[in-house]
Amino acid sequence: MARYDFASDNTAPAAPEAMAALVAANGEGFTSGYGSDQVTRRAADAVRALLDADAEVRFVASGTAANAISLATLCRPFEAVLAHEHAHVCTDETGAPGFFGHGLGLVRLPGASGRIEASSLAEPLAAPDQAHWQSPAALSVTNATEYGTVYTADAIAALTGPVKAKGYGVHLDGARLANAAAAGFDLKAIKRLGVDILVIGGTKAGMSPTEAVVLLDKGLARRFDARLKQSGQLPSKGRFYAAPFIGMLEDGAILRHAAHANAMAKRLAALSPLRVAHPVEANAVFVEMDEPTLQRLHKAGWFVYRFLDGSVRFMCSWATTANAVDELGETLRKLV
Amino acid sequence: MARYDFASDNTAPAAPEAMAALVAANGEGFTSGYGSDQVTRRAADAVRALLDADAEVRFVASGTAANAISLATLCRPFEAVLAHEHAHVCTDETGAPGFFGHGLGLVRLPGASGRIEASSLAEPLAAPDQAHWQSPAALSVTNATEYGTVYTADAIAALTGPVKAKGYGVHLDGARLANAAAAGFDLKAIKRLGVDILVIGGTKAGMSPTEAVVLLDKGLARRFDARLKQSGQLPSKGRFYAAPFIGMLEDGAILRHAAHANAMAKRLAALSPLRVAHPVEANAVFVEMDEPTLQRLHKAGWFVYRFLDGSVRFMCSWATTANAVDELGETLRKLV
Amino acid sequence: MARYDFASDNTAPAAPEAMAALVAANGEGFTSGYGSDQVTRRAADAVRALLDADAEVRFVASGTAANAISLATLCRPFEAVLAHEHAHVCTDETGAPGFFGHGLGLVRLPGASGRIEASSLAEPLAAPDQAHWQSPAALSVTNATEYGTVYTADAIAALTGPVKAKGYGVHLDGARLANAAAAGFDLKAIKRLGVDILVIGGTKAGMSPTEAVVLLDKGLARRFDARLKQSGQLPSKGRFYAAPFIGMLEDGAILRHAAHANAMAKRLAALSPLRVAHPVEANAVFVEMDEPTLQRLHKAGWFVYRFLDGSVRFMCSWATTANAVDELGETLRKLV
Amino acid sequence: MARYDFASDNTAPAAPEAMAALVAANGEGFTSGYGSDQVTRRAADAVRALLDADAEVRFVASGTAANAISLATLCRPFEAVLAHEHAHVCTDETGAPGFFGHGLGLVRLPGASGRIEASSLAEPLAAPDQAHWQSPAALSVTNATEYGTVYTADAIAALTGPVKAKGYGVHLDGARLANAAAAGFDLKAIKRLGVDILVIGGTKAGMSPTEAVVLLDKGLARRFDARLKQSGQLPSKGRFYAAPFIGMLEDGAILRHAAHANAMAKRLAALSPLRVAHPVEANAVFVEMDEPTLQRLHKAGWFVYRFLDGSVRFMCSWATTANAVDELGETLRKLV
Repeated sequence: MARYDFASDNTAPAAPEAMAALVAANGEGFTSGYGSDQVTRRAADAVRALLDADAEVRFVASGTAANAISLATLCRPFEAVLAHEHAHVCTDETGAPGFFGHGLGLVRLPGASGRIEASSLAEPLAAPDQAHWQSPAALSVTNATEYGTVYTADAIAALTGPVKAKGYGVHLDGARLANAAAAGFDLKAIKRLGVDILVIGGTKAGMSPTEAVVLLDKGLARRFDARLKQSGQLPSKGRFYAAPFIGMLEDGAILRHAAHANAMAKRLAALSPLRVAHPVEANAVFVEMDEPTLQRLHKAGWFVYRFLDGSVRFMCSWATTANAVDELGETLRKLV
Repeated sequence: MARYDFASDNTAPAAPEAMAALVAANGEGFTSGYGSDQVTRRAADAVRALLDADAEVRFVASGTAANAISLATLCRPFEAVLAHEHAHVCTDETGAPGFFGHGLGLVRLPGASGRIEASSLAEPLAAPDQAHWQSPAALSVTNATEYGTVYTADAIAALTGPVKAKGYGVHLDGARLANAAAAGFDLKAIKRLGVDILVIGGTKAGMSPTEAVVLLDKGLARRFDARLKQSGQLPSKGRFYAAPFIGMLEDGAILRHAAHANAMAKRLAALSPLRVAHPVEANAVFVEMDEPTLQRLHKAGWFVYRFLDGSVRFMCSWATTANAVDELGETLRKLV
Repeated sequence: MARYDFASDNTAPAAPEAMAALVAANGEGFTSGYGSDQVTRRAADAVRALLDADAEVRFVASGTAANAISLATLCRPFEAVLAHEHAHVCTDETGAPGFFGHGLGLVRLPGASGRIEASSLAEPLAAPDQAHWQSPAALSVTNATEYGTVYTADAIAALTGPVKAKGYGVHLDGARLANAAAAGFDLKAIKRLGVDILVIGGTKAGMSPTEAVVLLDKGLARRFDARLKQSGQLPSKGRFYAAPFIGMLEDGAILRHAAHANAMAKRLAALSPLRVAHPVEANAVFVEMDEPTLQRLHKAGWFVYRFLDGSVRFMCSWATTANAVDELGETLRKLV
Repeated sequence: MARYDFASDNTAPAAPEAMAALVAANGEGFTSGYGSDQVTRRAADAVRALLDADAEVRFVASGTAANAISLATLCRPFEAVLAHEHAHVCTDETGAPGFFGHGLGLVRLPGASGRIEASSLAEPLAAPDQAHWQSPAALSVTNATEYGTVYTADAIAALTGPVKAKGYGVHLDGARLANAAAAGFDLKAIKRLGVDILVIGGTKAGMSPTEAVVLLDKGLARRFDARLKQSGQLPSKGRFYAAPFIGMLEDGAILRHAAHANAMAKRLAALSPLRVAHPVEANAVFVEMDEPTLQRLHKAGWFVYRFLDGSVRFMCSWATTANAVDELGETLRKLV
């Protein structure tokens, strides 16, 4: 039977802290609906504390929807979002930004190992408004990136600075923000980076399915619940999306788990005989692997994906064990 | 502090059977993602068994999205859905059908107590195709209805017959299908009623947030997962949406709980001194109540809603206790 | 062969002044495209002069698109437009507002003879923002109305006042603005009425297909050409949509023709033996007519439409002749 | 004052034959609306005769809309269109396909001089359906291409064959179909090429604004007028979009004019001292030109565009004179 330990960080179950909070929230009896309950308020407080920021916070079921709704909030259909060419919003969401954004465009920017090359912003930002193409209205940055690298706060500021100078919006896709934080990214700096909407991934961080949408520009909160409801992202039993954040944030479990996942990635990189394709800074290890080797690995029972850049990804999570890493490392050494 | 016991059937926590299954599924370690896991397969089998029908089954987070995606599957933007004028899709989803369906129209049909008046179908079905309005392409029926009444299988067949004769699609909104079934609606008859897409509500039936989308017309399943992904409704950790259905369906808990909820509604109707506005057939009691009385009720701590037809709704769920019903009944007798 | 003289005001050909301007503009040789040409500039000046207003002006091919784009400019998908229940945007555009506006809602207001009852605004404007329905963000007013009645400037101000007080937008559908003006509506007052976007109908006023979109709130012009282009309404050979406005506006032909059309309607109303259903203030006559009579009229060769309110419409245009009116009047007297 | 003779083929006025037909159609008095008139029928016959094909034909105002509506007819939002990376639908329509198609995707294919490299189809057509990206559902081909090259019927068949074998749709963007035909492309072969929807450009062929949408798959015509109406492309005064096709098709003027435009391009290519960037097969000449030279050319009064591939385009039309070509040629020889 195939093993999915390293296929993604969403193949893992939810962490005990998340499950405990879920069960506890369920035990609170009847509550009001649609995010007006006390569990949701408490979780929102925990998010604000994590970021040391004033912000409106909502909890939704889907990271894809959270990202797409964010972009639709910042851009009109005849405008475009600047994003890394391999960002999740560009490659892995079946066109969700265009669906939620009614045809909004994506301007794909280059950059090594998933980080946007800062100099690539100059041209699209300088291009005059023109009726025949979609001019940019927002930037989307992902931290940690799709390739497991991590931006520093300064590196993000170098991107958001010129974007904000044009009056455009900024979305930070934090599907793996916990891993970035565990790798040294300062969460409390986000409020100074010009980010308008931040999505904090719960699912990949070890929770049951939930994502926090953080409106750092609180002006965007007007009628935002109606937007969520129309988009199918205003949960009636809101506590189920809020509770895991309580369990994982209030005692810092989210960062402990992320640090573990990152450590497992480093351990695997050290054990692997394969050439690493990208710097191992968070919880992913990308390696160069030819197709026959990948097929042998699959036959050996380990399921992993080849990525757009041609490399093969091993993803670690809160649930990855040192034993599994060692076992995989050994398999790899035999296969290669 | 306000009590939400009767405000809705989504103010209740999840039932023990659902939570136990959730916890058990979480304990299964790593699994593949996006609904390809064995928990999801087992839950889909349970749904098929419940209906005694072959069908493609998907589990999603949101009933609003499930309905809107269903309608968008059956209708193009320049077409319309026939639905009861007070159906959830018409009144309570912030225009989600138009959002997911890119402007698709809703033709609002009359009918007492939430049931579509069968004779009202004749005119829209007979109207010639015309470029200047949105011709119907599908019917949406809700069972149990928004007003707590229940269609028999024959009553639904009387609606779907002429619709299918035109070659149009049929969506059955089963947000409270369990309550309809507990009231005598034959779930195994659905497969003979011409329903193309059925949404079975898990949330209101006592689960953590989850809804089953049942494609009885299996031809609609082609690329349906891509549709779900783009719409933000393809959960990566699919087991969290599937497991509650296992817990509630495999041993019949869903029907036991629904029968209890229905019984609580009948008990409340018997205790209430107020004139009932609609037949009490499922888990809702709608009563005639003037505004001062409603205000006094809110002051007394019981939060409930006034509906579009002017009546006030009391909703029972799996978690409603006989004590709470009796307590509310006594309060009502004092207030009136 | 059927006669379409009274079927609509778009069954008429274009007036000589419009055609002459079209031919003249075509004779100007090569020009730049997409509305940047001198013909378009001159026509925009003529529109501003007509209104005595500073505004951004665009010329597009379709009134339906012009209206729908206007509403999409003023409303987000999870918001709604307040409009008369029989307004063109509500009944006769195949859901175009929802298509261009990605699901935006329409709140249908009552009012006699096509004019919105001012008191009906109070409730939707006072309703608190709520996540479960589409709160209003704009008002759409039509002058002359669908039923051939005409608002005074004061009557429009009574509608727009409370709407602007809420910070919402205003769209004025002027498909028959010329007829309203010829009936006494002061075009130069529009700039004081809080209208953000005005659509001036060229087609029904006797031009070849063209509509002017007038952005009285010039802030809305930012990237508006991109919006038009994406919507298929930025004509490459812009002069063909601008020239007719030059021909009809610069010497006042538009008002002369509209006055003629209005006079023909009054003449028909005087000759008709049928009870008039709405005040005859512009270029339409609505009469009460039973179905057998309408069938006989169609057999007699005169094609006209029965409307949503059950009455039958006779529409006059610049091209309607007194002879045709007299002939129709005689036919009606014989048929009834 | 700038000269736009070579800036595009839509900077030209309409040809005499088109204008004469327009004026004649306007002289026919009252007609029924929305494309049900005899002018429209006659023009549709002329289109069918041109193609020697049975087909449903509609006339619309905008090529961008015609293309986008075609793609939306062939693809659902979670599917994608295969097209040349520099096709008009990919680069020059401000995201109209995504707007009209509710987020549908575009898969950009390579190929020299605007022609899709046939071998590039293999990979996207072979890729398994996958929920995380937009699988192809249609191919869009442009003839003549954006770079003024022309496909033969066989070359198109080599593209459409594998696409139709998958059961996918085919759209042929014929904005410059007349130029392709004049260059030898067999219009009567189209019906054998698997094209479902063909758009024939009227505007660039020398008409006033109009495009013919030809539904070679007549099954697509069901409710297509409603689709057009909702999209703002069902003209009430339909004769204005149909008449130019009568004037240009019935006596073959369209091909005469296109042959002239093509000849002017060849003449210019022969006179130009600049290296040609693409084969001159239709009515465009693309040349290699550095930026200082382009600036000098603009200063000399000739306005032309630099394209995505870096070359500069000179476009000829029915109205291009040999004198102008010679004059431009001389200017170029002096500037370089």
